[in-house]
Order: sequence, then C-alpha cells, then structure tokens
Amino acid sequence: MRPFTHTMPFPEALSLALQATIPISRTEHVALGAADGRVVSHDVVSPLDVPPFDRSAMDGYAVQSADLRSASAAAPVALTCVARIFTGEVSIGELRSGECIQIATGAPMPNGADAVVMVEETSTAGAGVPEPAGGLAEAARVFFSVAAKAGQNIGRRAADIAVGTSVVTRGQVLTPSRIGALAATGHRTVEVFAKPTVAIVSTGNEVVQPGLPLPPGHIYDINRFTLESVARRHGGAPLALASPGDSLDELMRVLDAAMAHDLIVFSGGSSVGDRDLVRDVIAERGEMLFHGIAVKPGKPTAFAVMTSGVVSPSNGQRELPRDTVETPVASSEAKRLPRSLFIGMPGNPTSCLSNAYILMVPVLRKLAGLPPWEPHTVTVPLARRIISASDRHQFYTVRLVNGQAEPAFKGSGDITSMANADGYMEIPATTESIGAGTLVTVTLF
Amino acid sequence: MRPFTHTMPFPEALSLALQATIPISRTEHVALGAADGRVVSHDVVSPLDVPPFDRSAMDGYAVQSADLRSASAAAPVALTCVARIFTGEVSIGELRSGECIQIATGAPMPNGADAVVMVEETSTAGAGVPEPAGGLAEAARVFFSVAAKAGQNIGRRAADIAVGTSVVTRGQVLTPSRIGALAATGHRTVEVFAKPTVAIVSTGNEVVQPGLPLPPGHIYDINRFTLESVARRHGGAPLALASPGDSLDELMRVLDAAMAHDLIVFSGGSSVGDRDLVRDVIAERGEMLFHGIAVKPGKPTAFAVMTSGVVSPSNGQRELPRDTVETPVASSEAKRLPRSLFIGMPGNPTSCLSNAYILMVPVLRKLAGLPPWEPHTVTVPLARRIISASDRHQFYTVRLVNGQAEPAFKGSGDITSMANADGYMEIPATTESIGAGTLVTVTLF
Repeated sequence: MRPFTHTMPFPEALSLALQATIPISRTEHVALGAADGRVVSHDVVSPLDVPPFDRSAMDGYAVQSADLRSASAAAPVALTCVARIFTGEVSIGELRSGECIQIATGAPMPNGADAVVMVEETSTAGAGVPEPAGGLAEAARVFFSVAAKAGQNIGRRAADIAVGTSVVTRGQVLTPSRIGALAATGHRTVEVFAKPTVAIVSTGNEVVQPGLPLPPGHIYDINRFTLESVARRHGGAPLALASPGDSLDELMRVLDAAMAHDLIVFSGGSSVGDRDLVRDVIAERGEMLFHGIAVKPGKPTAFAVMTSGVVSPSNGQRELPRDTVETPVASSEAKRLPRSLFIGMPGNPTSCLSNAYILMVPVLRKLAGLPPWEPHTVTVPLARRIISASDRHQFYTVRLVNGQAEPAFKGSGDITSMANADGYMEIPATTESIGAGTLVTVTLF
Repeated sequence: MRPFTHTMPFPEALSLALQATIPISRTEHVALGAADGRVVSHDVVSPLDVPPFDRSAMDGYAVQSADLRSASAAAPVALTCVARIFTGEVSIGELRSGECIQIATGAPMPNGADAVVMVEETSTAGAGVPEPAGGLAEAARVFFSVAAKAGQNIGRRAADIAVGTSVVTRGQVLTPSRIGALAATGHRTVEVFAKPTVAIVSTGNEVVQPGLPLPPGHIYDINRFTLESVARRHGGAPLALASPGDSLDELMRVLDAAMAHDLIVFSGGSSVGDRDLVRDVIAERGEMLFHGIAVKPGKPTAFAVMTSGVVSPSNGQRELPRDTVETPVASSEAKRLPRSLFIGMPGNPTSCLSNAYILMVPVLRKLAGLPPWEPHTVTVPLARRIISASDRHQFYTVRLVNGQAEPAFKGSGDITSMANADGYMEIPATTESIGAGTLVTVTLF
C-alpha cells in the first residue's frame, strides 16, 4: 500500500490493474436475437452447406444451356415449359433437352438443368405460362433470344458457407451479420462469455437514494447511477447493493456480499482521513495493488484483488467459504467468487465518473473479453490556452463550440461539469500548458 | 407505385421516407439505472439546490478567516478545536472567534465559519484531536501556519445546480453524466420517449426458423435476426412475428397484426414476379411511397405509410378498427396504431441487411427521436480499382487489410460477404470507377 503522498502515475496504475484482470471464463447460451455485442466463447462450425442446394439467382427459366447455343434476337429458340418451381418446393423428375422450367429466385434447381435465363430475356407464345396442373404444366412455348452459358444465374450449394467451415470464432464480438451467419447455419442460440457482474456500492453516511426525502446535511446518491450506466455500456451486468453507513462492520458485511461478483466498485470512503475505512476492509479480504493515483480529478482511487478463499491442500482449488450465502444484501444464491476485482472510487461524482471512463472501462472490457474501447474522438483546435499546474494526469472536460474545444470544467464535485460537456481531453502529467489553437483530441461522451 | 423499370434514386427515396416519418410521441417512465441512451421527453427542472448546503471541499478545519490574518510558518496561530463534523451530520451551535471545527470533505459548514483550511496546513498540539464527547470535543489546540481567505475550500450551496434550473431538456439523449445530474436532483425515474416497436416478419414458403429441421428446398431464416439486432441497436423494440406463407390471406393476417407496431419490416416477397404479394397487401392497407430503389444490392425495396383507420367525421381523430385485437400472432392487448410505417425489404440477406443500415436505421432513429447515426468511419486507400458498372447507389463491403480497403463482396446472397467484412463504402450511382489508392470512407460495422 502506498500513502497518498506517493501516488502512482496513471499509466503504471492502469497497467497494474489490467495485468491483474483475468478475462471471464463463465459462459452462457443466449438467443440469437439478443446476442448482438456479446463475445463468442467457442468456435462455431457449420453443420450444413449454405445455401443447402443449388438455387436460381433470378426469376426466369431453368434450361439446358446446350439447347440455346444458337439463340439470338433474330432467331430465338423455343423450348417447352413443362413446370414451375417456386421457393420452398423441390422439382420431381428431370429436365430434358427441348424443355424449360419456370423458376423463382431462390428456388432449387431442377435435375437436368445447368443454367437459368432471366425472364427479361424471354418471351412467351401466349399471354403467359399456364398454371401447372398436377405439377406439370400443359405444354407452353417460351422463346429465348440470348444464348446461355452453363452455370449462369445459379447460386451454388455451399457457395456462401460450406459444411465444416467456421462461422464465428472464440473471442469475436457478435454483430448483426455474424448473427445472420449463425442463423443461416441453423443455430437458434449461441454460447457466449457471461457478462461480468459488477457490484456497485455507494458508501457514506450522507448518501440518500433519490426518491427519498433528503435530511439536512445529506446528498442524493449519484455514483450508483453513473457507474451502473457506464458498466452496462461496456459489457457488464451491474447490480447496486444497499449503501452501508461508515462503520467497519457494515462495510465488511457489504463487501462480503459483493464478493459474489466479478467486479466490485465502491465509491466514497476511500480518502485518507480519520474515517477512511475502505483501506481497512480491503486489508482483511484481499491485496491492494494501488491506493492513490496521480490523476486529476480522482486521486483517491484504489484497486485490489480480492482472494479471501482458502486454498484446499488436496487439489489446489480455492474453497468457497461456507458463510457467504447468508449475506444480508446478496441474493440467496450468491456465492463468493474465488477471485473478484475491487475498485475504490472517489465519492466525488465527477472524479468517480472520470475514473470510471479511464480505469473501470478498460478493466471491465478486458474482464468481459471485449476489445479495448475505441471511443468516438474528434480533433479540434483548443479555444484558449490551458495551464496545467498539476503534476497529475488530467481528465479535462470540454464543450465543442464553433468547432473548437472550450473548457467545461466547473468544479471537481460538479456533475454538471460532465453533463454539460461534450467530451474530455486527457492531459498527461508532464504537460504544463497547451496553447490556444493547438489541435487536441476530444473523446466524445 | 412505380414499376421496377423506374427505380427511384436512393437519395430521393431516403428523403421521402424521412419526410413520412413522424417522431414517436408516446412516453414512459424508466428507472435511472436503465435510462442510458433513452431520449428525454420533457424538460426536467431541479426541485433543489445541488449541493443542498455549503460544504467543505477538503478534510481540514472550518475557521473564521479573520482569526488567521497573521498566520505564517514562522508565527502559527493557534485555535481551539471545539467539535468535529462528519459527512451526513449537521453542526449545532455556532463557531466563534478563536475556535475551529474539524470537518470532513463533503460535510456541511458550521454556522459562523467562512473558510476551510486543509489538514496539511495545520498541526496539532498533541497526538491528534481527541474524540468528541457529547458533540463538543475537549479543548484541543490546532496550529495554523498559513493565512486563510474568506470562502476558501467551501463548495457553495447551488454551485452545481440551482433550484429551478434545467437538468435535462426534451430531446436530449441520456448519458451517464446526465443520469448523474438527474440523480443529484433527487429523481429516481425519468420520462422518456417510448422505444418504437418494430414488427419483423420474414415471408416466404422456403423460410424455416433455426433450430427446426430443414426440409429439402428450404433455408433458415436470417433476416429476422439481423433486422432484430439492427433495430435494437438503434433505439427500437423489435418483435419477430411468425412467418406467413406466400398466400394473400396469410400475409394480410400478419400485416394486420403488425399494424399494432410503429414500424413494420417485412423481408422477402417484394420482388416483381408472379407471386409478389406484398404489393397487393399494401395497396389494401396503406399508401406505397416507393417500390424499387436504385441501390445495389437491394433494389426490390418498398416503403409505405399504413393508415387503414377511418377518419371519424366528428373530431377528425382516426378510429381504431375493432377487429384488430383478435389477430392470431399479436398479443391480446395489441391495438392497431393509427399510423405505422412499412418497409418491404428484399429476401436476400445481404440486400436486406445493407438496406437496414442505409434506410431502416435513419427512419428508425428519427421515429425514436434519436439524432442521426454517426457511425465509426475510417478513411483509407482503396487496395485495388473498383469498376462500378451499376447505375445504382452501391453498398460495397470491404475488409481492412494492411490499412487498405479490400473488396469483401462475394455474392449478393452471401451473408458471409458481410460477416467477414469490416465495413462498407457507399458508391454513388454516378460514379463509374474508383482508382486504386483513392482515399475512401469506410463505415465500420
């Protein structure tokens, strides 16, 4: 543990946190329609060919191309239409020389045919092809004015996906088109990595849940909702636990309940002060990797690996303690995980939210198996000079006004500093000032 | 209605579709934790000041700044510490000259104090400030080595949000920080526009749902899942309805059920051909704005406004037909909406999906009250020359290979053309070729 007098540089802290983050291994099956954005946990191989049969790519006529070798506009060739094939049907019998079969786009090719001629390149003798009776039409003559090449306008079996080829692979993030490929190969569900569960806990005697009356000296809980929203955006399944008061017993009880989750995010209570209790409870249950980072705002931030399970001597597996089921705020099915990550966020809402973006998001995405976040950014000139007296990595909110970045920062406790900002720029600890007009990269909210 | 021989240019079609799209007016209340990305339907004004009281911005001592006018490192000033205030507490009594009160970050300022001095700028006579007994501590001397300015380190009541000011406004999309501002002002829920419901219907006798056995001549339903995923990404609440077979009666029955939804998306059945039935059912229930657009792939695409309700002569309101409740596939609570939009997509999966991106997404976002989509794009050189013989607007899938855009298109029916692509470029109908090395804009999936 480091005292705040020796804060850790932000890049080092982030790197330590990511090293300690082990991607989730639990998986679950989800319905295709709800699988967008999920991470594939196992390679999926196609059990069938797509398309599963040779099919017509056009509305037209299935023919033997040899019959049409001499066809031209001047000397059309006539064939006898003997049937129609609609989609979803299979033709019985075989196309013979001198015959054609009317066929719809997507319908299976009849045996004996080797090409399809578009309906636009044909004409019929009468008003149209008669309705088929009993599968075969009465004889009707169709005139072909263009020669056909063998294979033309046929979608070949397996042209899209051959049986045994990979449809999606482990680690891929599902998109609408990948979901389409899974559907095409007959899958109704897909196995994906479970979303990491995120226990969110706002600590502090002064914190009251919105909707309840606000006693004097109290403030409404903000961090619970901002953290919940950010966690949900980045692949997490957040759950807010009841806020404990500032007592060691209460914090410990809630922390134990939170250890049923992959990631535990406390806000508040992490400052160095007479009543800083988070450090004490962490010491009981895990290993603190850092406490105090050189970012502004957001210095009083802690990161720990919680591993309170005991190692069974027989097999090296961690044994789940038996007493964790009866925690007061977790569900009755909660089990302590063998390893949870803990982030202690500042209570200050903007510090908490900015650290959520720069620290919690990378950790959560790695935990979820998601690729690093690639936020929308814009590069614009700075409207006026910024002096960064700080020797900490700065998370600096800006508004975009007339194509320039204007500072939006009001005060580190002000949620409107962020709500009214369009995005933020990061200013490294080593930068002392940035001149007006300098092109800066703004990450948009 | 236009026959396909006269397809509508894509920009004109999109503009017509957007003109016909009226943003949703239904609203609903959602819990803050689930409100991210939703569109605010009413201005929200703060019922309170944030912070609700003057509070300390530091761990330190509340003082009367006049007492410390002469303080310096050489000649520290001693004050008597008479109390402690923690967060969530309110101090009783008043700070008098010669006294200080220990105060935690976020705790309310005591009456009589006008500044806070950081604990780092003080020292105490003994080992620490004694625990308070009965609210007031035993007398303890604290030494201040720096002068204090009136107002320093105080977070003023209402500095963040003053009572009566706007927290969020109608039409804003909620973000974590805006949700934080709502929580800060005591809101537990927020009124937002309802998500437009999207009825998705895959038509065609050949279509089978994944998970079921695949009879000869049949293919699995792809479009249902790709459309569902895209709709969910862009603010819609999709619902897949059972696929009707290719009969007028079945299509009409499903269309009537679908009219309980804001947007109806059929795929398949929209081609001009002997068994094109969608055009017929639309004619019964609404007005076709276009049928056949000059895009490649995706020509056989239709757009209609469904307004089958009858205008009541008394008040000009549309009367909901009485027979719509008993549709076989809609829930028993379904009511026909006075106005639904209809998009008829090609059955071909890639054509369907590409038109979902370029046509359905803009319509759905406008319906949902969301701003136009700003997809991630990259500008990269084209790996090799593309010849665009088509006089249609092309949706051209590419892969990014070594920082260049390589064509990924296999065949218009191939879902893997999209699943294996990184994104797409649009080629206007008027462009005949694009040279290798030309910088092109690729919209990433």
